[in-house]
Amino acid sequence: MITPKTLSGFKDRLPKEAMAKGAVLEKLARVFRSFGFVPIETPHLEYASILTQEEGEIQKELYLFKDHGKREVGLRFDQTVPLARFIAQHSHALGLPFKRYAIGNVFRGERAQKGRYREFTQCDFDFIGSSSLLCDSEIIQVIIASLKALDLEEFCVWINHRKILNGLCQHFGLHTEEEITAFLRIIDKLGKIGQQGVILELKACFPLMDFQAFLEIINTKQQEDPLEFFKSVAYLKAYNSTLKEGLEELEALFKLLLSLEINPDHFKIDFSIARGLGYYTGIVYETTLNQLTSLGSICSGGRYDNLSKSFSLKSFPGVGASIGLDRLLVALEELELIENKSTSARVLVVCMDASHFSYASQIAQNLRQSEINTELYPEIGKLKKPFGYANQKGHEFVVVLGEEEVQRETLTLKNMTTGVQFNHLSFLRVLAMVKE
Amino acid sequence: MITPKTLSGFKDRLPKEAMAKGAVLEKLARVFRSFGFVPIETPHLEYASILTQEEGEIQKELYLFKDHGKREVGLRFDQTVPLARFIAQHSHALGLPFKRYAIGNVFRGERAQKGRYREFTQCDFDFIGSSSLLCDSEIIQVIIASLKALDLEEFCVWINHRKILNGLCQHFGLHTEEEITAFLRIIDKLGKIGQQGVILELKACFPLMDFQAFLEIINTKQQEDPLEFFKSVAYLKAYNSTLKEGLEELEALFKLLLSLEINPDHFKIDFSIARGLGYYTGIVYETTLNQLTSLGSICSGGRYDNLSKSFSLKSFPGVGASIGLDRLLVALEELELIENKSTSARVLVVCMDASHFSYASQIAQNLRQSEINTELYPEIGKLKKPFGYANQKGHEFVVVLGEEEVQRETLTLKNMTTGVQFNHLSFLRVLAMVKE
Repeated sequence: MITPKTLSGFKDRLPKEAMAKGAVLEKLARVFRSFGFVPIETPHLEYASILTQEEGEIQKELYLFKDHGKREVGLRFDQTVPLARFIAQHSHALGLPFKRYAIGNVFRGERAQKGRYREFTQCDFDFIGSSSLLCDSEIIQVIIASLKALDLEEFCVWINHRKILNGLCQHFGLHTEEEITAFLRIIDKLGKIGQQGVILELKACFPLMDFQAFLEIINTKQQEDPLEFFKSVAYLKAYNSTLKEGLEELEALFKLLLSLEINPDHFKIDFSIARGLGYYTGIVYETTLNQLTSLGSICSGGRYDNLSKSFSLKSFPGVGASIGLDRLLVALEELELIENKSTSARVLVVCMDASHFSYASQIAQNLRQSEINTELYPEIGKLKKPFGYANQKGHEFVVVLGEEEVQRETLTLKNMTTGVQFNHLSFLRVLAMVKE
Repeated sequence: MITPKTLSGFKDRLPKEAMAKGAVLEKLARVFRSFGFVPIETPHLEYASILTQEEGEIQKELYLFKDHGKREVGLRFDQTVPLARFIAQHSHALGLPFKRYAIGNVFRGERAQKGRYREFTQCDFDFIGSSSLLCDSEIIQVIIASLKALDLEEFCVWINHRKILNGLCQHFGLHTEEEITAFLRIIDKLGKIGQQGVILELKACFPLMDFQAFLEIINTKQQEDPLEFFKSVAYLKAYNSTLKEGLEELEALFKLLLSLEINPDHFKIDFSIARGLGYYTGIVYETTLNQLTSLGSICSGGRYDNLSKSFSLKSFPGVGASIGLDRLLVALEELELIENKSTSARVLVVCMDASHFSYASQIAQNLRQSEINTELYPEIGKLKKPFGYANQKGHEFVVVLGEEEVQRETLTLKNMTTGVQFNHLSFLRVLAMVKE
């Protein structure tokens, strides 16, 4: 006998959770498509050489092994590296610009901890092949529309621009790309280890730099009006041209977003958003839920200049974001925005005798033809069991068919919410009551 | 520079194909849910011990390796073994009977060949925890409803009963389970290697048996009326009790199905359907498309007695089927039942100047609010490019915004199907024309 269990860091989704996930994905995909994003699929397994070109911590977490042909292969750890490979391989067939979304599972052998899984689902959307401001604006719009589609109302996309951070770094004496990247990797930890933790690390790594002044600037919060905020930091433009460009590009983005009918509480400037990954070159953003800030960002991303540089001589600029679905589902559960059901059927049909299976099947078929999801209870016997089943799973109605119902061609209907039972109804009456 | 390519036997899906797959899955899931089936999810990765308990060819095709904790792990090769593990682990929380569907990718390191992939998608649905005839009938109904939902009309579910085959085997002198399994594995190849191939193999393995007489019986075809057919083979009931039970159970199933409003061309008796897998104990079935029989079965399954026997002392009967999605998609493509589009948007909005991005974004937003998927072309310049883009991807309409349009708050609309262009329309007029 083998013990039935999942691997540590992996999990099953029971129906309630799987249905909630499915409903969320359907809503997200509908938003992505409404903006003209199209789905693509890449394999879960790639050549190891494709996955190992990315630097950093992630390398230790890769699932790498040899396949039957002794090839070094690995499970994907994100959907961006496969996208870079995909674009380099298919850009001619696709035609640029190209807007793709991808919903899929990725694998990271991280140390297992609460709420962190080794297999998890990412929803990515990217606008590739254009440097236009319109793309940046659209990605922010998609994030906002996605969260609103899930009935989230209290959230904010915190937006920054890499040129602002780079310009500030230059101003404070950091000049090589390595220095700036190392510095911003520490800044990126503000949310995780807090101001004091960051200061300790900066002291150790950048003892000569006036990072207190740097931190003061990036901690300046946006006032009510973003355009007022841009005025208040306009003095930074004089520091250097990188800073100037960054501020102007960010301001142009905000002006475009503000001209649309979007609640301005949903997007704000935050100079402290750094994003650890080296490849960002333009705007960067994170998204938090006002009631659950401790959860961290549920949707992050930014603009990059050169998506497929490891695979192609051609340069592909783009801008995109990734929704961490598992974290988002935790949030929706906490905010009670998820349906608490374990059934996809609204009606359960129960027979008192096996000879009524045909009549019951016809009733169920007719209900389905009227778009009412209907389940048949397959066993006969005491009514206690099917009613317990309906209560456990969450059916709204139970239809009972006994000898009399079958002979008179009627139905007995119980409304499971009110507990009221109606005897000997016609099919059309039942249909009307269920549709109400 | 790394060559951008997928592993042999693995493939990318470009938007047209991924959209077609998504649309098919959505339709299938809707049918599954209409019968009260609920989704579950299990990890792609399982303990190797869970995957290696299944016998046969499959063992050579498993992707097995060691993870970071030196555990022996493997990629799932189907969704039935994970289901067996899942049911043994969660049956108390789930409550029986339990109807689950699962749409997911599985991995088999088979020799790569045309149309066969090492990663492919299965859509499984199973009715677990009940031996009722109603479940068998429902699985057949779900298969038929699924294919009809995809606009397939010319197909047949070929149904047999393991007890009929077992009873026949007994009658012809095979008595041990091993003998019967080995014999039926050869019979199962009828579709692949034909009558002559099967006879050759049978001669070699069962030289003393009168397999010609056996083949004659199982090749008897159903006449127009299934009930007439049952009459014509009623003499078999006298052979032994296994045969009698099998025939009676199959006849009861047909009577139930025939009492519903289902086209009787969609389900027929075929005594030659064996299904190779050892665990089937009741009805078994395969599904072929009349115009594409050479494609083989696109949906197969059957009834089993003891789903989780490797994981649990408790017995879980069930009945289920699996749709091979990749093969189904090939069929839909051949039968021209798949949309030939690479965009999810119906309308493409094009600007002549970057200063019009705000007006264009508002137009797009308003169209989306009316449920019209709308894409913005992010670049400005010559109109040739965006029109080429719309032609390549399949947008139905292009909206052009020039200086005059913006000033007069009008739109220019081109119908890409008819080629007709309308200048200076109001937004409401455009909305009406697009909705038409």
